[in-house]
Amino acid sequence: MGRSEINIVLLGLGVVGGGVARALHDKAEGYAEQVGLPLVLRRVLVRDRTKPRSVSVDDDLLTTDPGEALATEADIVVELMGGETPALDYIERSLQTGRHVVTANKEVVSKHWLRLRSAARDSGVEVYYEASVGGGIPVISPLKRDLAANEITGIRAIINGTTNYILTRMAAEGVSFSDALRQAQELGYAEADPTNDIEGQDPVYKLSILSSLAFRTFISPDDIYREGITQLHARDFKYAAELGYIIKLLAVAKREQGGVRARVHPTLLAKDELLARVDGVLNAVQIEGDLVGRVMFQGPGAGSDASASAVMADILEAARAIRFGEVTTSSDGSSGLSAEPISKLISRYYVRIEVMDRPGVLAVIARSLGDHGVSIASVIQKETDEEGQTAELVIMTHEAQEDSMQSSIKQIAGLPEVSEIGSVIRVED
Amino acid sequence: MGRSEINIVLLGLGVVGGGVARALHDKAEGYAEQVGLPLVLRRVLVRDRTKPRSVSVDDDLLTTDPGEALATEADIVVELMGGETPALDYIERSLQTGRHVVTANKEVVSKHWLRLRSAARDSGVEVYYEASVGGGIPVISPLKRDLAANEITGIRAIINGTTNYILTRMAAEGVSFSDALRQAQELGYAEADPTNDIEGQDPVYKLSILSSLAFRTFISPDDIYREGITQLHARDFKYAAELGYIIKLLAVAKREQGGVRARVHPTLLAKDELLARVDGVLNAVQIEGDLVGRVMFQGPGAGSDASASAVMADILEAARAIRFGEVTTSSDGSSGLSAEPISKLISRYYVRIEVMDRPGVLAVIARSLGDHGVSIASVIQKETDEEGQTAELVIMTHEAQEDSMQSSIKQIAGLPEVSEIGSVIRVED
Repeated sequence: MGRSEINIVLLGLGVVGGGVARALHDKAEGYAEQVGLPLVLRRVLVRDRTKPRSVSVDDDLLTTDPGEALATEADIVVELMGGETPALDYIERSLQTGRHVVTANKEVVSKHWLRLRSAARDSGVEVYYEASVGGGIPVISPLKRDLAANEITGIRAIINGTTNYILTRMAAEGVSFSDALRQAQELGYAEADPTNDIEGQDPVYKLSILSSLAFRTFISPDDIYREGITQLHARDFKYAAELGYIIKLLAVAKREQGGVRARVHPTLLAKDELLARVDGVLNAVQIEGDLVGRVMFQGPGAGSDASASAVMADILEAARAIRFGEVTTSSDGSSGLSAEPISKLISRYYVRIEVMDRPGVLAVIARSLGDHGVSIASVIQKETDEEGQTAELVIMTHEAQEDSMQSSIKQIAGLPEVSEIGSVIRVED
Repeated sequence: MGRSEINIVLLGLGVVGGGVARALHDKAEGYAEQVGLPLVLRRVLVRDRTKPRSVSVDDDLLTTDPGEALATEADIVVELMGGETPALDYIERSLQTGRHVVTANKEVVSKHWLRLRSAARDSGVEVYYEASVGGGIPVISPLKRDLAANEITGIRAIINGTTNYILTRMAAEGVSFSDALRQAQELGYAEADPTNDIEGQDPVYKLSILSSLAFRTFISPDDIYREGITQLHARDFKYAAELGYIIKLLAVAKREQGGVRARVHPTLLAKDELLARVDGVLNAVQIEGDLVGRVMFQGPGAGSDASASAVMADILEAARAIRFGEVTTSSDGSSGLSAEPISKLISRYYVRIEVMDRPGVLAVIARSLGDHGVSIASVIQKETDEEGQTAELVIMTHEAQEDSMQSSIKQIAGLPEVSEIGSVIRVED
């Protein structure tokens, strides 16, 4: 059909968009060689034309008019604006008009998974979202392709650089959460409003995408249990280390009988596990398949160039698909697995409790746990505050069921001998 | 064209072949759904039809006649016999007759890289070799696709499970090489004749494949400097640990000005690097790209099911390509980079020397190093053998050039004050 180039429209020219525009410009020749056709940037939607930018894009290409951007003739629309609105609308309109879409938008992809896939299928195009999880680390494509021979049985991931940086600082330096957060903000690793990161919403979006793909069933962000890192104390890191563990904000999804249980919460991870050694802003995704066993993908989870690497990989794949006439490879089959609530989770638990420093306290606590079917693996009495006549107990339980554990904790919190439940942290084995 | 199935011929039904046959059988339904057509095993070439097998393949499919196997109508030929001859011949004949080839044969792929690619191109088919490196870990496909937007600048890899198991044991238990090898053999991690592993030939083949792909230029196994692990002493692990290092058999390829320097040898790696913590039979490949920075892929580098996972991923990709009519995606462009010899390598070095325990010895050694432009970063005098009147020096150098270092070592070895050069190990920073 005599196609002579691949036309691209870019929505957004921020950190990642800038990196993509730069790569398209600087590496034009190599990319053209790979695809067999030049990749041509046709229009760039920006919020402010006059804003100074680190990347030079031809002034004529910039527009602030979404209608104009979306009406531009294009084979591939690259959405890098972020946020749900109006990005969802632009992505859908692009798909409906037969354009492949490449996006890094975790919120849109996770919330509107089924809708986007069906819009793409209806138009015979594909939506690509490698950069929505793990920045530059290949994870989506390995799940789609390299591990396609496997039934995926589990995912364990560190997919939020901000919180991993904070937890790494807290573990290494014994500082408080708020001090570590301040450090992260000073270094630009945390935003001025860090809520989405520290409360775990960002990794929930990403885990939703990973598990929907891996388990071939839609796992909505709303189906994922979420707990942030704001309640963690410096002491928990110290005690965890003494017990041989490191605390990570882990995103975990596991195939259970008939379902998938997905959750994001602080987790004690044995310190000799490779995943426990992923520090700072780095991300890592560990995937378990019935054939391959466990494989891990690790690298920079954010950053202009790293994310541009993933976006560009998608653009190149879409371009090759267009050039060589490959039809979509998405399997539309669904496994029919349902999302399981956390209440039936079986886990070991680390519990830190402030108690009155008097005889018989442990017996009362142990009885409550026992009454709920939770058995104790070890108890250590930590620093006693003689003035306040309180002591601190650190309890490790054997495997127990989440709802039983929570009932017991609720009961223990109400005991007159207990001044405070310090922390309850699940242990990942 | 009304194709109703994808026909497969399997050459070899050993450990990996058995795993592939099992997956094809057990997961037939899921694979058919993914591809849109059933995958049908048409013929299996074996050496001995009567051999008892862990996988049940219809007796009628087995043949010991290569001619019959290769004449069978097939879309994909899967070569899992290993060894150079006659595998190369069978692969070439399959490509020439227009069949896609999936192989795990590192020796054939590395030695005959250009020949196989050109045979595939001439027939408009593709040769897939994900399982030739890193067992079940996706590395070939990420290099081809997910990192395609990058210029690859370096590769560092642990890609031989046998030697990594031996080195892990030596580091953890202070045992000798021969004891660790015996353990590995008892556990089935090392073959009865372990030469290819312990002398580094196996990782050389794999590094050849990785670097030819990553740097888009043929790096022959003969172009790769190779040094095995048989000369390492238990003491080296102890001293390395004291200095903050772990010893790994590392496969390293780096882009230098105009060329690629590739080498496989024991290496001191700082112990806080994630790669240094890849233990036992596990493999890991770290890839550095100009956009993405460093990403690492880690997992099981061998095993029936893990390797079958990679082979099956290739079969599924080939099947989709056949089904959807995708043309080959291999770029035939060459970067024109040449393979550089090790002589101009710039590295730091760990050197262990047995010397006469008398004054002035260090001065003589330091002079030789200095005369060759090698400066010393630190010297520690280790255990003195009073009876033999010898002492052991452990020297860490600053960066120096390989050929200067080797000249100096040769000179030092000839000094009357020196009884033996214990080890010279390069340090990876």
